[in-house]
Amino acid sequence: MDSLKQFVREIPDFPKPGILFYDITTLLQNGEAFRQTVEAFARAYGEQKIDTVVGVEARGFIFAAAVAFRLGTGFIPVRKPGKLPYRTVRKTYQLEYGSDTLEMHADAIRPGSRVLLVDDVIATGGTARAVADMIREQGGQVAGVGFVLELEFLHGRKALDGYEVFSILKYQE
Amino acid sequence: MDSLKQFVREIPDFPKPGILFYDITTLLQNGEAFRQTVEAFARAYGEQKIDTVVGVEARGFIFAAAVAFRLGTGFIPVRKPGKLPYRTVRKTYQLEYGSDTLEMHADAIRPGSRVLLVDDVIATGGTARAVADMIREQGGQVAGVGFVLELEFLHGRKALDGYEVFSILKYQE
Repeated sequence: MDSLKQFVREIPDFPKPGILFYDITTLLQNGEAFRQTVEAFARAYGEQKIDTVVGVEARGFIFAAAVAFRLGTGFIPVRKPGKLPYRTVRKTYQLEYGSDTLEMHADAIRPGSRVLLVDDVIATGGTARAVADMIREQGGQVAGVGFVLELEFLHGRKALDGYEVFSILKYQE
Repeated sequence: MDSLKQFVREIPDFPKPGILFYDITTLLQNGEAFRQTVEAFARAYGEQKIDTVVGVEARGFIFAAAVAFRLGTGFIPVRKPGKLPYRTVRKTYQLEYGSDTLEMHADAIRPGSRVLLVDDVIATGGTARAVADMIREQGGQVAGVGFVLELEFLHGRKALDGYEVFSILKYQE
């Protein structure tokens, strides 16, 4: 699948000087590259009896929704506070500087259901850890945590210790 | 398709008193309802030679990405200012109170390509109008503007005069 890397645009100094940003919008723009990416998730999880796919606002919704459709499952959005129009549970987690909070509907996860978390990029893994823990606290079984891109040099897998982690494109720097 | 309405949760007084909010997260949670919704878009646009699907941050990404995958096309995100990591074009448009601005990548729309705009809800149509105009200004051909829910009493189709509008579930009040 490394051939898909040609569709990832590398943008120096975004969002700040010294950061090399991997832009997946160029992969999304190409119908065949997008299809192959979603099919890679389907190969990894198609036999895992996934009940539902969770995606994180905003960019994370894109691949997660397509994977949910491909697997024939439902989709659950995790959003920034105040966006979901019904009873929610929330989780606050630490970032390098400060903290962040995410919410999901309190009735979204069916207890015992097998849940796949899909996001576009794993960097330090903090967001994915918080969401995976929230799914588990709601009684869901986290069947896997899958990413399109993994920035291996940031060691995000360590933050996801105890969860099964999958990624399609790995970057060493 | 009106049977899908049973999966739409009605929430009174959200986001403010007197507003009845139609919540599509309950439709998304149900794999079969989600699938039927995406297939309804496929029936409407499957023969229209769509080249790419555009979705609007954040909730709009969900259906638009799944429809893009189903049609085998690429996907282009329209985002709030400052979120896209490359050269962008932007459009500012009027809301009932104040204004809003959206961006897309300057190189995203291939001139002459047939573009489908998908969003979850059409209310007054202001956002969809701005995005459709932006697509056209970038040289794209707007093949259609499709919604899951149409709040007919807000007359959003008027704002989209000149564009072909499609919706799956219509609400009169």
